[in-house]
Amino acid sequence: MQTELSRKLGVEHAVFGFTPFPAVAAAISRAGGFGVLGAVRYTVPDDLERDLDWLDAHADGRPYGLDVVMPAKKVEGVTEADVEAMIPEAHRRFVRDTLAAHGVPELAEGEASGWRITGWMEQVARSQLDVAFDHPIRLLAGALGAPPADVVARAHDRDIPVAALAGSARHAVKHRDAGIDIVVAQGYEAGGHTGEIATMVLTPEIVDAVDPLPVLAAGGIGSGAQVAAALTLGAQGVWLGSIWLTTTEADLHSPALTRKLLAAGSGDTVRSRALTGKPARQLRTAWTDAWDDPAGPGTLPMPLQGLLVAEAVSRIQKYEVEPLLGTPVGQIVGRMTAERSVQAVVDDLTRGFEQAVDRINRIAGRSGR
Amino acid sequence: MQTELSRKLGVEHAVFGFTPFPAVAAAISRAGGFGVLGAVRYTVPDDLERDLDWLDAHADGRPYGLDVVMPAKKVEGVTEADVEAMIPEAHRRFVRDTLAAHGVPELAEGEASGWRITGWMEQVARSQLDVAFDHPIRLLAGALGAPPADVVARAHDRDIPVAALAGSARHAVKHRDAGIDIVVAQGYEAGGHTGEIATMVLTPEIVDAVDPLPVLAAGGIGSGAQVAAALTLGAQGVWLGSIWLTTTEADLHSPALTRKLLAAGSGDTVRSRALTGKPARQLRTAWTDAWDDPAGPGTLPMPLQGLLVAEAVSRIQKYEVEPLLGTPVGQIVGRMTAERSVQAVVDDLTRGFEQAVDRINRIAGRSGR
Repeated sequence: MQTELSRKLGVEHAVFGFTPFPAVAAAISRAGGFGVLGAVRYTVPDDLERDLDWLDAHADGRPYGLDVVMPAKKVEGVTEADVEAMIPEAHRRFVRDTLAAHGVPELAEGEASGWRITGWMEQVARSQLDVAFDHPIRLLAGALGAPPADVVARAHDRDIPVAALAGSARHAVKHRDAGIDIVVAQGYEAGGHTGEIATMVLTPEIVDAVDPLPVLAAGGIGSGAQVAAALTLGAQGVWLGSIWLTTTEADLHSPALTRKLLAAGSGDTVRSRALTGKPARQLRTAWTDAWDDPAGPGTLPMPLQGLLVAEAVSRIQKYEVEPLLGTPVGQIVGRMTAERSVQAVVDDLTRGFEQAVDRINRIAGRSGR
Repeated sequence: MQTELSRKLGVEHAVFGFTPFPAVAAAISRAGGFGVLGAVRYTVPDDLERDLDWLDAHADGRPYGLDVVMPAKKVEGVTEADVEAMIPEAHRRFVRDTLAAHGVPELAEGEASGWRITGWMEQVARSQLDVAFDHPIRLLAGALGAPPADVVARAHDRDIPVAALAGSARHAVKHRDAGIDIVVAQGYEAGGHTGEIATMVLTPEIVDAVDPLPVLAAGGIGSGAQVAAALTLGAQGVWLGSIWLTTTEADLHSPALTRKLLAAGSGDTVRSRALTGKPARQLRTAWTDAWDDPAGPGTLPMPLQGLLVAEAVSRIQKYEVEPLLGTPVGQIVGRMTAERSVQAVVDDLTRGFEQAVDRINRIAGRSGR
């Protein structure tokens, strides 16, 4: 499973694995893929420093990358308190009432919310980069689009290619014009922030639009046949996020959430603004239903919604309140039916890829060897 | 491009083409694919008889099929007038006001609406079948699911396999249990009635669920690379509908609509209940926006919505009122950029398929010959 891009980056398989867990990122890289650590949850630079040190010690010298969230629109001199003040009281009440209706306990006095909106703020992302550039990262990815020009330049000075997610050919062309090196075509079926165009249509459209830039296909990919299909569509690699959530190396801190993921079918996700204010695919829960209910107050725009629900999400996760408990995940959650090691997932992908290539060669009447 | 199914049906390419136009169906079969004529618009059996006679004379003896719409729920002794009476006056007023706001002229006195809900009714579908079974149809397909058991039996008595569309593995298993021979996995990105699971995820899921029944992949397929991707996912063929709408053999009766289709991008469709009351992907227009607007009265359930808007749709189409003018079409509308003959489309699909197989063999490090 070798493409021009995988050869250039020095990985055995053209499989890019996005994950918030250093242990998963290291295992993906060790298995011959390309682990990409999501930085959004690191609000304290020292925590990222610690985890990148760990990653350096455990990736066996294999390449890995970092994914940062830098909003396209720059927010100058706005504090978290300023943003907090923009949240209507009716929305705060709705959060309180929904949590109360499900008997969600309060956090202990002084206990911090685990997931903070600050990770979305540009100054936080910049402090993450100051840390990251002192580590041997081999890819910088932007989940919300192209990072600012000076950040791209900084990466390029270090020979680090920059990738950015796009949900349409128009966005992909903007990324190319911003100096991005790799476009991640994020289809409708993907977990997290996603547009409405499905991977089958989006991938070749973006490949054509940004040619000769390499494209990674994301969304709906959890098996070797899906990897093969994506590469058949012209992608130079695949970008997988959901599949790692139920690996043994993942640390969801919630057995109940793992159980929900393993039990969920492909129809059990929803593209909802409940988490961040932008449409993001996630498990459908009583929480997303409440926000998507026309009878409710509806969601606020990014970044207000994320700030509004941050503590609530922490409480739901900490106390594992099952009806409300969710996570961003794509439609391939339907094939996540058992906990497996990262190595077992990668083995399954490469074996399934070879079988799928056998199949298409039989259909094409070729020997394929 | 040969699968077990294409060999069994005696076609050169595993490409099934759904179309409301006999000239397109005949051309698909002549080009080595499998043309499937949509019967829903034939409210008068004699019209279908005439077109099937024409098809028999122009398919050069190649196999073709018929697609009928038979609602899953049987409606006994209910007339069109009964159904008409169930439509609220507020909805009728909304139709009148929306048409008036766009200056849509009335039909001439006595002029019939071209598209009638009656085509959806079971008795009409049964009269279509009485006609069709006297013709050498080689496939009976059900766009809304499995036909009733006696219809399946009637087809099987004539050695005609029966196909049914499914938007989820659960539906596909129901079809198999109803004696269906071929499942069409209709992905989210498809034109017409469609669920929320994208082709990349849905196809292998349904392949696994109904194994060893053959599966056709539908949705997001308009190029040879997309054909190859779908077959890589385990489908035994592809089912294409949208791509034929802008062929030279198609007869949309509206140059303005053809222009809109050729100009539309992959993001210019919407999955809306505006046309039939069930979610169906179509061009996004001022008409779909009006129905999807939370400030409006919203859509009625099937079959009420179809009956409510039938005459309005005819008027919009007849007078080519551009802002309102639409049609069911999938996300691949973005690659329909020029009128081409059916033969040119099929040639493009087969050539693109071979190139895609070359690509995946290069990536797999195989000679592929």
